[in-house]
Amino acid sequence: MKLLKIDDTICAISTGGNESAIAVIRVSGDNAIKFTNSIFSKNLINITTHSIHYGDIIIDNELIDEVLISIFKKNNSFTGEETTEISCHGSIYVQEKIIQSLINSGCRLAKPGEFSMRAFKNGKIDLSQAESIADLISSKSRAEQQVAIQQLKGGVSNQLKKLRTQLIDFASLIELELDFSEEDVEFADRNKLKKLLFKIDNEVEILIDSFKTGNAIKNGIPVTIIGSPNAGKSTLLNSLLNEEKAIVSEIAGTTRDIIEDKLIINGLIFRFIDTAGIRKTDSKIENIGIDKAIEKMNKSDIIIQLIDNTNDVEKQIKKLNKLSKNCTASKIIAINKIDINNNSSVDSAIYISAKKNVGINTLKQKLIDLSSINKLSNQTTIITNTRHLQELKKTRDEINLIISALDNNISSEFIASNIREALNHLGSITGEITNDTLLKNIFSKFCIGK
Amino acid sequence: MKLLKIDDTICAISTGGNESAIAVIRVSGDNAIKFTNSIFSKNLINITTHSIHYGDIIIDNELIDEVLISIFKKNNSFTGEETTEISCHGSIYVQEKIIQSLINSGCRLAKPGEFSMRAFKNGKIDLSQAESIADLISSKSRAEQQVAIQQLKGGVSNQLKKLRTQLIDFASLIELELDFSEEDVEFADRNKLKKLLFKIDNEVEILIDSFKTGNAIKNGIPVTIIGSPNAGKSTLLNSLLNEEKAIVSEIAGTTRDIIEDKLIINGLIFRFIDTAGIRKTDSKIENIGIDKAIEKMNKSDIIIQLIDNTNDVEKQIKKLNKLSKNCTASKIIAINKIDINNNSSVDSAIYISAKKNVGINTLKQKLIDLSSINKLSNQTTIITNTRHLQELKKTRDEINLIISALDNNISSEFIASNIREALNHLGSITGEITNDTLLKNIFSKFCIGK
Repeated sequence: MKLLKIDDTICAISTGGNESAIAVIRVSGDNAIKFTNSIFSKNLINITTHSIHYGDIIIDNELIDEVLISIFKKNNSFTGEETTEISCHGSIYVQEKIIQSLINSGCRLAKPGEFSMRAFKNGKIDLSQAESIADLISSKSRAEQQVAIQQLKGGVSNQLKKLRTQLIDFASLIELELDFSEEDVEFADRNKLKKLLFKIDNEVEILIDSFKTGNAIKNGIPVTIIGSPNAGKSTLLNSLLNEEKAIVSEIAGTTRDIIEDKLIINGLIFRFIDTAGIRKTDSKIENIGIDKAIEKMNKSDIIIQLIDNTNDVEKQIKKLNKLSKNCTASKIIAINKIDINNNSSVDSAIYISAKKNVGINTLKQKLIDLSSINKLSNQTTIITNTRHLQELKKTRDEINLIISALDNNISSEFIASNIREALNHLGSITGEITNDTLLKNIFSKFCIGK
Repeated sequence: MKLLKIDDTICAISTGGNESAIAVIRVSGDNAIKFTNSIFSKNLINITTHSIHYGDIIIDNELIDEVLISIFKKNNSFTGEETTEISCHGSIYVQEKIIQSLINSGCRLAKPGEFSMRAFKNGKIDLSQAESIADLISSKSRAEQQVAIQQLKGGVSNQLKKLRTQLIDFASLIELELDFSEEDVEFADRNKLKKLLFKIDNEVEILIDSFKTGNAIKNGIPVTIIGSPNAGKSTLLNSLLNEEKAIVSEIAGTTRDIIEDKLIINGLIFRFIDTAGIRKTDSKIENIGIDKAIEKMNKSDIIIQLIDNTNDVEKQIKKLNKLSKNCTASKIIAINKIDINNNSSVDSAIYISAKKNVGINTLKQKLIDLSSINKLSNQTTIITNTRHLQELKKTRDEINLIISALDNNISSEFIASNIREALNHLGSITGEITNDTLLKNIFSKFCIGK
């Protein structure tokens, strides 16, 4: 496999490449200033870092644009390399012409995420920080942005560094313990040793658990609305969507494609899973519908049981409770159509009129309250990345092997090997342990120009 | 009507507002630095112009993003006002959050083109230069970009300034001539006076004529392909389009909507006008088809007469010549299907096989040669703006009135009034003469953030 080169100079449009008022082209590498200088009307050599220069882009004696060029000297840029940013008019022709000329000067078109990869390779950020940049860019809600920026600022890295330190502490203790085991010297008592190991295991487990939250933040908190065909599910959904900023997006599932509605309430994304299947009345089809509804409820964090207040309320609740009895999701009973009929009284239920937009804010507040991620604190590290989750699970497995090894007085070599493995898994999250295939895989998912 | 204010501070996303690696938010006005400073982690007050500052955007104690902020002091920026540019990660959430906070700090969301309007109002550029910015941004071909950048660099303005100077020269001559007419003193002889006027008239006429070129550059050079139903029109069009970068765009005509194919050859846009109508064989419908084809040919700069070499070539040419006999467009005879039959010999015709892609490059070169705008020189001023055209036509009308006034010995007051009108029309192009309604109308067509 070809090694990932960082000894050439790369360039890319960093602002999307569409027509816009201004566009920014980024150049990074040893010859960034030299190559930029070759198409610029003024001299950019020996100029101070973090300065801006106004002039013309001239290519083959033809005036292309009036631009501003920002200069970042080596070790003073995002990538750690000499960098220029050309702020030009956002014409598609102009953007492409400048990129083409930079390439003719000797630049190479950057691959997706290549600037971030260089920042990582040059030690400006660690791997989990680099990965957070892609998350930050794709963030559409407050919660997503908060988790991403905390990871960018080293939140995840610091937590993992602490874990690694604890594991190294444990390693030194166990080595002493085992090295001198024949001499009956107790450098650390067994209980203390085990206590430390359980502590580490517990922290890894908390990080693994945080992924569920992280995933809900990234992809939306899954909510299913169930209820009889005429309970007003679509009306409720429309009522929720009309009020808030709706993102209607297609999510490609592994087994089939379903269209889901997303909306942001108080900075959190809620993802409403369609339960159209439950509506069929033919008994056989209804069973399939019920199976599907149960399947969907099992994937949900929250279930809204929507009750038609113009029909038998108790009967409906009983039926829906039966349907969702094995689901671990939080449940909300929403009693609809109070504009027509308002004579029932169910404890802890929310009374609404989806049609007249009554009680919808109360329902939203309830969704927020039940989401459990409504309060994001700087102290909590949340894992949002599947790769990190996998590595943490592997770390946990190694730790569990060590625990049982300790219980069974297995040799120190075995334990030392497991500790090394655990340290490797933790290290691969922050990129202390890595390889080019992994890096290519990670950065290929980035957008161009970052 | 409310006056266009320039005493507040405006902000806008200048990079399109979509998700991208980086986005740029521009702030301009007396409080640009103060308002930007209020959401930034470092002090931006009393900092040198054209410098870049790395730090965090913090809003309500919540970390939003790591950004770079560029500082431009008053009289040192595009708008002429104090300006900051916030280069943030291109997350939709982050962009909107920063804009919202700037507004909360006291900024106003900029209207389309408002930064350019301020640059004009503050005397940084004249009106025709400001208008060229919108053209530059929308340019997709070399010719468009070249015309726009020359206008931005003052090409049109300089030409008009020269015209105005000549008109003012004429005004002083005519005033002397007329003031002292009773005394029989000849400060400038009549012939010299008329000669100057004809010279001005001639230059205005050249500018008016250049609009046809300008329009062709902006909207594409209109080309019609005519020929019998099986001559291979679609095959030829596909062959042309497949090779080059095709822009298929919908152009809303005034009377009906037609879909046209555009392609860029050597930096020029060619716009192929559909002549599907001519294909019908029923005599009545064919007449309508022929009328439509003639209508389209009259709108074209170039007509390609496409001949089927497997049929009677002479007869086809004769028929098509008859059809296009009143059209002023340049004509190309392209004889198709030489892969099947190659036994005709027509002078100055281009022999092609649209199907086998033979002779297509020769045809393209012919299109370029006939386009008359293939060589754009810095010396030629080309009018691309309908508003400029209208003002030039009004200038010409005034000049013609002056010419006949001179011929008929009309009073100096009348002539002086016509000169003032002519000067006003010229002045309104560069914005020396203007009003808020005109400005609003011009800048409302700009994109946001420029």
